[in-house]
Amino acid sequence: MSQTIATRFTRRFGVPHPVALAPMDKVAGGRLAAAVARAGGLGLIGGGYGDPTWVEAAFAEAGDAPVGIGFIAWSVAERPELVAQSLARRPKALMVAFGDGGPLVEAARAAGVPTLWQVHRMEQAEAALAAEADCLVVQGQEAGGHGMDRGLTALLPGVRDLAGPELPVLAAGGLADGRGLAAALMLGADGVLLGTRFWASAEAAGSAVAKAALVARGGDETLRSKVFDVARNAAWPWEFTGRTVTNAFARRWHEDLEGLQRVLDAERARYDAADPDDFETRALIAGEALDLIHEIRPAGEIVAQVVDQAAALLRRAGEVLVPVS
Amino acid sequence: MSQTIATRFTRRFGVPHPVALAPMDKVAGGRLAAAVARAGGLGLIGGGYGDPTWVEAAFAEAGDAPVGIGFIAWSVAERPELVAQSLARRPKALMVAFGDGGPLVEAARAAGVPTLWQVHRMEQAEAALAAEADCLVVQGQEAGGHGMDRGLTALLPGVRDLAGPELPVLAAGGLADGRGLAAALMLGADGVLLGTRFWASAEAAGSAVAKAALVARGGDETLRSKVFDVARNAAWPWEFTGRTVTNAFARRWHEDLEGLQRVLDAERARYDAADPDDFETRALIAGEALDLIHEIRPAGEIVAQVVDQAAALLRRAGEVLVPVS
Repeated sequence: MSQTIATRFTRRFGVPHPVALAPMDKVAGGRLAAAVARAGGLGLIGGGYGDPTWVEAAFAEAGDAPVGIGFIAWSVAERPELVAQSLARRPKALMVAFGDGGPLVEAARAAGVPTLWQVHRMEQAEAALAAEADCLVVQGQEAGGHGMDRGLTALLPGVRDLAGPELPVLAAGGLADGRGLAAALMLGADGVLLGTRFWASAEAAGSAVAKAALVARGGDETLRSKVFDVARNAAWPWEFTGRTVTNAFARRWHEDLEGLQRVLDAERARYDAADPDDFETRALIAGEALDLIHEIRPAGEIVAQVVDQAAALLRRAGEVLVPVS
Repeated sequence: MSQTIATRFTRRFGVPHPVALAPMDKVAGGRLAAAVARAGGLGLIGGGYGDPTWVEAAFAEAGDAPVGIGFIAWSVAERPELVAQSLARRPKALMVAFGDGGPLVEAARAAGVPTLWQVHRMEQAEAALAAEADCLVVQGQEAGGHGMDRGLTALLPGVRDLAGPELPVLAAGGLADGRGLAAALMLGADGVLLGTRFWASAEAAGSAVAKAALVARGGDETLRSKVFDVARNAAWPWEFTGRTVTNAFARRWHEDLEGLQRVLDAERARYDAADPDDFETRALIAGEALDLIHEIRPAGEIVAQVVDQAAALLRRAGEVLVPVS
């Protein structure tokens, strides 16, 4: 790597490269966040549903690597002490998504920790701007895991127009390589936040069976649905859906959630009893970027590869220009 | 405009600029297709559901402008004479979407007319490649009108990888300005096919009320659904959904298609009886790119603006590169 990409994001967050790790629940532990941070990206631990022991262990595992943490707003609202505990660790950044991030942004600002707020619709961007988050993450519906229905291609430049020219903005959803980073910059972003690509990394916390499935499946084989939140009895607000690999369980119930509700106890028991690696029953969270993922790699190599490929594209971008005849 | 963008698409189709008009049913008549063609883009008449009188009138209206035509595969399959009639007009190109485009590609090839085949999923790209279409159009779910569920950001580079480095590929869905064109090029495309942006043009065939609504609404206010095909008794295969502006009719029935089926005669009568400009009842077809559309403009100005903005972005793309410290 001879060149990298300097943006409003790299300057504001003090990282060499405009690549961030999505704070994926369970998957983004201290090992993965540290690997991304040591490679020059922004590594974010997945604060998930607010287990303080897990969070403490993740920070410990990251060691001296400068990692941040991400929270689910509606979930952590019930336990502000977890935010305080995390801020006491002096994280590199605090990210919030899925609900009112205002209180977290305020707490982080008081602690001198820069913030990212993930938005899924234009109307959410207005709330994030009002709270003066330091960076907006614009997530398209292509993304794995929880999200909403809008795609990235119009939402991202729309949010840029709303945010004005100064605010750092990251793009997320369906991005996994340097083409995605270069495209995100053209649409007005300052970098990318990658989930599925880092889930398919050596340092991600997950089974070999799960990771092999990520490599084997493609984007056509994913689905955005409510089915697994219903099956797992998750307390997610109804407007947020989740993208997973399509499997037998999802095919059975995706278009018949009322039917699932009628046999919920039995189906939930069946779901809970399934082997953790039985991904014809259990949710395997993944985004449409599966089309672009062909091997499990160390996270640091992923950071370097994304930056190198994007830099090469940007360096040669002018070569297609010709005089108007 | 001092520079434009030369790609595999502009070379193969013999057009100055890598911008194509989506062959929107009713909206893309001869006037709009001719305006795009005269501005140096690829103008495509909307062959729609196969009304030969309308198609003949559109070609006549285009005059000596070199326009092409687009067909809905499942619809035109019943009337091959319409394809023959169109090919006899020596169109600039023939585009096909929504079903088996094989017979149309074959007929066009025999007539020496280059072809475009729109795909919505990876598996469809394989069929289009097997039929040896001259260009693949990759449409994301952000697009207005009929489509499927995959977003553009991963599907586009995925299709590029599948197609290999030589085949022209256009991007569609949520794109409306030069940022979208530049981003599409970074993701591996050779240009863009724009629908909603040209629908909001002076030459589009549509009412002033409809066009004013396009300017007034945003991408958050659109919805991909089956509701209007059911209400209109359209014979669309079930896998294709349609994106429209969300309105009272769609809100009432989108999540209760079974309920709509139970009162279908009455609701269909109400739909058909509604004023053509009553867009709280009728479908106003539009994509998520509404976020990026703030005025009705002449189509030729849109072509020039998209190319100019993209060229400026590509020219300066390398400015973000810095040495690795």
